[in-house]
Amino acid sequence: MVKQDRAIRTRQTILAAAAKVFEEHGYQAATISEILTTAGVTKGALYFHFPSKEHLAEGVLHEQDQLLPIPDRNCKIQQFVDTVMLHAHRLQTDAMVRAGVRLSLDQQALGIDRSGPFLRWSQISRELLEKAQAQGELLPHVDAVETADVMVGSFAGVQAMSQAVSDHQDLPQRVNALLRHVLPSVVMPSVLASVDLTGARGAAVDAELRAHHLAQQPTPPAQPAQPAPVS
Amino acid sequence: MVKQDRAIRTRQTILAAAAKVFEEHGYQAATISEILTTAGVTKGALYFHFPSKEHLAEGVLHEQDQLLPIPDRNCKIQQFVDTVMLHAHRLQTDAMVRAGVRLSLDQQALGIDRSGPFLRWSQISRELLEKAQAQGELLPHVDAVETADVMVGSFAGVQAMSQAVSDHQDLPQRVNALLRHVLPSVVMPSVLASVDLTGARGAAVDAELRAHHLAQQPTPPAQPAQPAPVS
Repeated sequence: MVKQDRAIRTRQTILAAAAKVFEEHGYQAATISEILTTAGVTKGALYFHFPSKEHLAEGVLHEQDQLLPIPDRNCKIQQFVDTVMLHAHRLQTDAMVRAGVRLSLDQQALGIDRSGPFLRWSQISRELLEKAQAQGELLPHVDAVETADVMVGSFAGVQAMSQAVSDHQDLPQRVNALLRHVLPSVVMPSVLASVDLTGARGAAVDAELRAHHLAQQPTPPAQPAQPAPVS
Repeated sequence: MVKQDRAIRTRQTILAAAAKVFEEHGYQAATISEILTTAGVTKGALYFHFPSKEHLAEGVLHEQDQLLPIPDRNCKIQQFVDTVMLHAHRLQTDAMVRAGVRLSLDQQALGIDRSGPFLRWSQISRELLEKAQAQGELLPHVDAVETADVMVGSFAGVQAMSQAVSDHQDLPQRVNALLRHVLPSVVMPSVLASVDLTGARGAAVDAELRAHHLAQQPTPPAQPAQPAPVS
């Protein structure tokens, strides 16, 4: 069990290092030896978890997809907005997410199936929009599949533009503007009026998730009382 | 004059070759020697026009920007839509445009100012939207600068997604979907009702521009009558 925990930690360390190197240099220029140095693990450990650079990139892309779940909201459009805004916040704050997005847009990463993240995000968006539709939150003409694709594609470009012009500093405002341009064409006005689209939403949801995660951790066993240090 | 014509032709040949190589391999992996081979020009000619790979990439980005002008339309939103749809069509059909977009999204092209094309497209979009606004085509709350940025960012991502999932085959439909999602939030319904947003619009505008360009060429001198071929 302890051994398994250590393996999971090593795998995470390697993925974090790979994310850093991929984000800095892109797929093609990234080298396994730089990832090794950054991770500070043995060559054997790295190859045990990831037999090639392609496996490392797929690991980062997969890891990025693990970060998605948002608690269920009564209003499915709010849940959709929260998912989008949280992703924008993580792009600003989490190197793994940045590396994943970079790899998805990196045409040089030829060996890798780049359509995967687009299609997975479309799937997640579609499911939320279909739930919203079933609850009567969407305008009658909306095709959830099409709207999901428009949102996923648009988001990818808006983040690329934000990265190019401000290194992601203006991302929350740009995503807010995107939502204000797209949602009125698909959401019932009465629903939209009570949805929070503000740029600060991503950080708030992130804090909510962390608090929730901490609350779910088992309480650590009480530490034996330490003798007071002699000052 | 003839010498100057030849220099312009050589420059174009080099840029077309650079576009092809940048599109295939990305900025970092592209080599001057492959561009040389593809262009079939001398090393001296290439370095005379473009002293470095960076100059070649900037040349391609600049060339892409030269392809924009659409004839004036009475309805400025139609002119805006035509500009967007023509760009989508050219992405499908013109390697120079594809290479320019790829370089703009290519984070590996570190030496190059990648924000340039985003900002130039924003500027062009903003001018058209401001004209539309002055003619009363837009809803009263619209901020033309913000809407221009949303459209430019969204378009960049929608084309990247189309490239990843269908090699640009479904681009006209995706751009049509984007326009149907964004324009109702900014354009007066009475104007929108008579705007053509169909995916076939890009090819139609391209044909219109080519016909216009041909009509403006000086008529070639009449050819001497040829003897009928002996069959």
